[in-house]
Amino acid sequence: MIERAAILSTGDEITTGKVVDTNSNYIADKLIEAGLDVASIVTVGDVSERIVWAWEQAMRHADVIISTGGIGPTADDLTTELVARVAGVELTFSEEVAENIRRIFASLNRTMPENNLKQAQFPAGATIIPNHLGTAPGYRLELETPHGRKHLLVLPGVPREMKPMMEESVLPWIGEMRGGGDVFLTRTFQTFGISESGLDELVSGVIAEDEGKLAFRANFPQISMRVTVRGKEGEVERRVEALARRLREKIGAYVYGEGDVSMEGVVGQLLKEQGKTVGFAEACSGGLSSHRLTNVPGSSDYFLGSIIAYSDNAKTRLLDVNPDTLSQHGAVSEETVREMASGVRARLGADIGVAVTGIAGPDGGTPDKPVGTACLALAMEGTLVSRQYKLWGNREWIKTLTSQLCLDWVRRALLEIPIAESGFIRR
Amino acid sequence: MIERAAILSTGDEITTGKVVDTNSNYIADKLIEAGLDVASIVTVGDVSERIVWAWEQAMRHADVIISTGGIGPTADDLTTELVARVAGVELTFSEEVAENIRRIFASLNRTMPENNLKQAQFPAGATIIPNHLGTAPGYRLELETPHGRKHLLVLPGVPREMKPMMEESVLPWIGEMRGGGDVFLTRTFQTFGISESGLDELVSGVIAEDEGKLAFRANFPQISMRVTVRGKEGEVERRVEALARRLREKIGAYVYGEGDVSMEGVVGQLLKEQGKTVGFAEACSGGLSSHRLTNVPGSSDYFLGSIIAYSDNAKTRLLDVNPDTLSQHGAVSEETVREMASGVRARLGADIGVAVTGIAGPDGGTPDKPVGTACLALAMEGTLVSRQYKLWGNREWIKTLTSQLCLDWVRRALLEIPIAESGFIRR
Repeated sequence: MIERAAILSTGDEITTGKVVDTNSNYIADKLIEAGLDVASIVTVGDVSERIVWAWEQAMRHADVIISTGGIGPTADDLTTELVARVAGVELTFSEEVAENIRRIFASLNRTMPENNLKQAQFPAGATIIPNHLGTAPGYRLELETPHGRKHLLVLPGVPREMKPMMEESVLPWIGEMRGGGDVFLTRTFQTFGISESGLDELVSGVIAEDEGKLAFRANFPQISMRVTVRGKEGEVERRVEALARRLREKIGAYVYGEGDVSMEGVVGQLLKEQGKTVGFAEACSGGLSSHRLTNVPGSSDYFLGSIIAYSDNAKTRLLDVNPDTLSQHGAVSEETVREMASGVRARLGADIGVAVTGIAGPDGGTPDKPVGTACLALAMEGTLVSRQYKLWGNREWIKTLTSQLCLDWVRRALLEIPIAESGFIRR
Repeated sequence: MIERAAILSTGDEITTGKVVDTNSNYIADKLIEAGLDVASIVTVGDVSERIVWAWEQAMRHADVIISTGGIGPTADDLTTELVARVAGVELTFSEEVAENIRRIFASLNRTMPENNLKQAQFPAGATIIPNHLGTAPGYRLELETPHGRKHLLVLPGVPREMKPMMEESVLPWIGEMRGGGDVFLTRTFQTFGISESGLDELVSGVIAEDEGKLAFRANFPQISMRVTVRGKEGEVERRVEALARRLREKIGAYVYGEGDVSMEGVVGQLLKEQGKTVGFAEACSGGLSSHRLTNVPGSSDYFLGSIIAYSDNAKTRLLDVNPDTLSQHGAVSEETVREMASGVRARLGADIGVAVTGIAGPDGGTPDKPVGTACLALAMEGTLVSRQYKLWGNREWIKTLTSQLCLDWVRRALLEIPIAESGFIRR
């Protein structure tokens, strides 16, 4: 049975601040989901005594140690040699792995530098963890120590290689090691229009301590809530579904998707399903709404185009906004934004036109219309709605928030959820 | 004299994978610049024995320990109590800090919860590090230990509070401690159009080992090169400038800025200086060029607007592309993109119009025009240039790269650097 994990990462690029260590975050997230307790995350540079220190420490307080980095072909890749030393075993050479490395180089029509064969060396007794995307496989080594049985896992530092190895080999192995034990099942809600603490308040008391665990994650402008249930396979699915139903009753109005989805992905999917087309007239969001929707592969099926009208002139020339509307009500007004939405819809021949105008700052605010004032409008067959918002935050924040609103309005229109009631933001 | 540092971060949110620890990366970068050696970066959750372990270990191998997190007002904020325990000193109460916390709450018209006074407690002998953006100040504690003199620094975990405290208090203190010793001066080049290894090759042998140290940092699509020189104040400036001159000779063609600047910032500055206006016609980049340029505060002075023409229909209706051009040459062709550039320039009445069209994938490629094919054009008074590129990468990558090219073309046009020769990408 394994309970407690330690994560190590090795590399001068991390201790000198050149690279943010995202590997450890990814691994920690996966281990927690798998039901392990992560006792420590330690990073050291490519220095023998520090790497040895890190392994020795980790082996004192964890029974699974997962390390990334330090298994490349160059002189500063020290991990394998030092793991063998710490474990007190010899290095062995795998002819099979060596052959595979030679094959990779041959397929690229390149000569293999001799030092690449270093990657075919492993501590005696190690089990290879295959790497389908690079030359360096990982490995797992089991040891009996005075502190108990230890599992040492070594993976490459390149995230693109490390992540599939975690998914394909390491996590299934952990599942097996914990087999018979409990499994963890999660359900994630993606929300918009409510703060983390507002969400927390809404669901307060809904789930008892021993039923499941709630976790919130704010990745602006998106706030997700995850419920994790621990239990036996076969019964835990039913329990997580029951909890999800109770949570949905409380926060359903703010949920735009479940699982690992984005607002633009949800909107794209809906447009595709309903065979509708869309276009934006963006002022303060500066193209971000269009950028996000076109991040979705296949968006050319429903996204026709947009007009970014930053100047007044562009609003009249490209969107047919009446110059009188602009002079009477100003660029940031419901009157203007309604004409922008109708204008872009007509110009593109789209089913839905959404427009936004606002003051992103830092300059341009007035006492009457301070930075953060934003107006949205949506035009579709038989409908033209608009609303004014008072948002807060810096320029980047306001751009992100207005683009999120544009996308959310499309979603609401397609699902026939009243837009004018999209009371943003409840705290 | 201080030489060796350890970085600690405390918080369940990191060991459970909810948050990426960017604080440690920031601190490591600053310490390296200040000439310290970062021996280890350790993260533990909010568990007493683990925090104590982390401090004790750090005090063995470092003489400066900088910790973030664990100094909030709640029960799981354990750092101060444990630092006092590790240091073997009492906790003292600062009436001055308490008064300041009360004042902050009063100014927000809120009642101060009693547990906030926990933030006015410090290990005896500590020197306060002021925090102008939050209620929790940091502190510094000096200790004599069997392993020598140790400096324990405690900062809050909120990056927005921690960073100014580093800049205003910690870094000047480190400078003083290392006073009389060497200083480190850096110069950073922002480049585009060349890979990291290509840059490395170009500058190979230009700088001797003892003259300075080169570091590369790839933050796609931007690759920066930093040269760091160590020496005495008063003479090091001259040396770093001499090195920068030699480096510029080799890589100048790829450098678009020096220091902490972005491509969009550089382009915005040039447009402002020259009093020119710009607009984009974006197809494959989907609004990203406009989004990036409008991230620059004050961009409404020179950015008039853009037309995102995703559909053929939008290209003819909004950009006056001739339908015959589209049917004869296709949407992704130099012929079409030239008409798009002229079209957007005319429609907006801008000085410069830049257009891009391409196949961002994953679908839409043909043997003749595979995914990654992109065409750019730039129109300005008396000039209309275009070029076809074969780019690589996934959808996100190609969008980013084409937006970078659009911005770089504006820069080149304003600086009268030939665009057709912008031989992207030299490996």
